[in-house]
Amino acid sequence: MSAAASPPSKRARTAENTQDTTYELLYHPTIPGRGEYIRLIFEASSVPYTDVSNSTKNDVYWALSTTPTQSHPPIFALPALRVSFPQNDPLVISQTPSIVEYVAHAVGLAPGPPLSAANLLARQLLLTALDLSNETHDTHHPIAVMMYYEEQKAEAARRAADFRGSRLPKFLAHLEAALEWNKEDVEGRRGGGRYLVGHGLSYADLVWWQVLDGLLYAFPNELAARKSDYPHIFDTFYPGIKNDEGAVSAYVKSDRRLPYSDGLYRRYPELDREAAA
Amino acid sequence: MSAAASPPSKRARTAENTQDTTYELLYHPTIPGRGEYIRLIFEASSVPYTDVSNSTKNDVYWALSTTPTQSHPPIFALPALRVSFPQNDPLVISQTPSIVEYVAHAVGLAPGPPLSAANLLARQLLLTALDLSNETHDTHHPIAVMMYYEEQKAEAARRAADFRGSRLPKFLAHLEAALEWNKEDVEGRRGGGRYLVGHGLSYADLVWWQVLDGLLYAFPNELAARKSDYPHIFDTFYPGIKNDEGAVSAYVKSDRRLPYSDGLYRRYPELDREAAA
Repeated sequence: MSAAASPPSKRARTAENTQDTTYELLYHPTIPGRGEYIRLIFEASSVPYTDVSNSTKNDVYWALSTTPTQSHPPIFALPALRVSFPQNDPLVISQTPSIVEYVAHAVGLAPGPPLSAANLLARQLLLTALDLSNETHDTHHPIAVMMYYEEQKAEAARRAADFRGSRLPKFLAHLEAALEWNKEDVEGRRGGGRYLVGHGLSYADLVWWQVLDGLLYAFPNELAARKSDYPHIFDTFYPGIKNDEGAVSAYVKSDRRLPYSDGLYRRYPELDREAAA
Repeated sequence: MSAAASPPSKRARTAENTQDTTYELLYHPTIPGRGEYIRLIFEASSVPYTDVSNSTKNDVYWALSTTPTQSHPPIFALPALRVSFPQNDPLVISQTPSIVEYVAHAVGLAPGPPLSAANLLARQLLLTALDLSNETHDTHHPIAVMMYYEEQKAEAARRAADFRGSRLPKFLAHLEAALEWNKEDVEGRRGGGRYLVGHGLSYADLVWWQVLDGLLYAFPNELAARKSDYPHIFDTFYPGIKNDEGAVSAYVKSDRRLPYSDGLYRRYPELDREAAA
C-alpha cells in the first residue's frame, strides 16, 4: 500500500481535470443529506464548486438533471454532479459513492489510483459508511420513503431498537478496527487513529466523519452511552477532522454548512436511547 | 463515450492481472446471494476462479476473511475476493460493487478505464442495480437482518406492498430508459436494447440481469403483470443474456448455478401480487 504523504492540494490529480473544470452539485436544497458527502470533498480540497439548488434558491435542477439528453443518460436519483471541461464533453455523474470517488480523484483526495490497493481500501470504507448512512435513514423510514414518518412510527421504533442495539455497534466496531489496523508505523502506514488509509486525509475519512456527525445529531443518547468503547473514533478521528483539518474544519464550523432538519439524519427522541438519569 | 467493440476476452485488461493471477471468492455457501453478481463476471469472461465455500463444503473462510492481518484490513461483511499475484502482495477486497468493478477491469468486462465516461455510466447503473437488490432483500427483512422473516411478517407485508406498487416500477422504468438512451446508433452507441453501455457486454448488464432474474423468482406475479410495460427489458435485454451470450448463457442454465432458496431473493407468495385469475 502506498501512502500519500503530501497535503491534499499536492496530491496527484487526474489529467483531465484542470483549473478550468467547473463542478455543479445537483441536489435537494436546504438539507445536508447525501449532498454533504460530496460537499466535504470539495471543501477539504478548496476546489470551487457550485451548490446549484442552494445558491439559486430553487429546485429546477431536479427536473433538468433527471431528464436524459443526448449528452447524458437518465439519472435515478439525486445527488448528481455536472462536470464541465474547456474541451471535452461535459459529464453528468450520479450515485453518491461514484461522485465522491470521482471528485476525490479529481481534487487530490484519493489515496492512490483507482485500482490501487490503497484506493480499493478507501472505496471499501466509503461504501460501508454509506451503507450505515442508508440504515440510519431507514430507522425513520423502514416501510416507504414516500410516506411520512408519522405513517410508519411503530415500525420505525422497532427498527431503531435493532439499529441501536445491533447494527450501530457492529459498524462502529468495524470503524474502530480499521483505525487500529492503520494506526501503526509499519510499511508506511501511520494513520495514528486519525486517518483510515495511509497517513493523510482521504475521502474515506471525510465520508465516515459526516456519518458520525449525523449519528451524533440523530442518536445523541445512544452515542453518549457507547463512545467510550471506541477511543480511536471519538478521541482522535472525529475531533481531528472537526478541529485540526484546515479548510474542512473551518467549513464544518461555518454558517455555510446547512443545519440538520427533516432529511437523512433526523432527531426523533422516541427512536433514541432514553437519556441517562 | 467509447464503446467496446470486441468480445470480452479481447478487451483491455489491467497490467497487474495476468494469467497467473488467482481469484478466490469468499462467500456464504449454498445460496446465489450477492456472490452471484461476482460469479457472473467471471463466468462471462471464462476467467477461472475458486468459489471457496461451495467447493470445500465448509464456511471456514468466513472467520478467516473477517480477521484483519498485516496484509489486509478488517472486512465488514461478505462477499470478499482474495486476489493472489505471482509477484505483488495479495489483495483482499470487500463490498460487492467494488469487487464487481475490480474483476470487470481485470477480466475485460469494463467498458473503459475507471474514470472514463463509459465506466462512470456502468458504475452508476451497477450501484442502482445493487440498491434495488438491497430493497428487494428488505421486503422480507424490513426490521432486522438477524431476525427471522416470521418475526417481521407484518412489517414485511407493508414494505412489500410499497415495493411492488412504487419502488419496483420506478427502478424498472429507469432501466428501460437507460436501454432506450443507449439504443440508437449515434456516436458509437448502439446497444440496441441489449446492452446498457456501448455495444458490448459489460458488468452493468450482468448485474442488472441477475437482479431481474432474482425478482422473477421472488415476485413472479408482479413481474408478469408489469412486464409488457418494459419491452426493452423483457423482450430484448433479459432473454439476450439468458440465451445468446455464450459462456454466461451456458452457465445460467447449468447445474453449477446455485438455486434460489432462503437468501437474498426469496419467494413468499404472501408478499407477491395475487395471481391473475
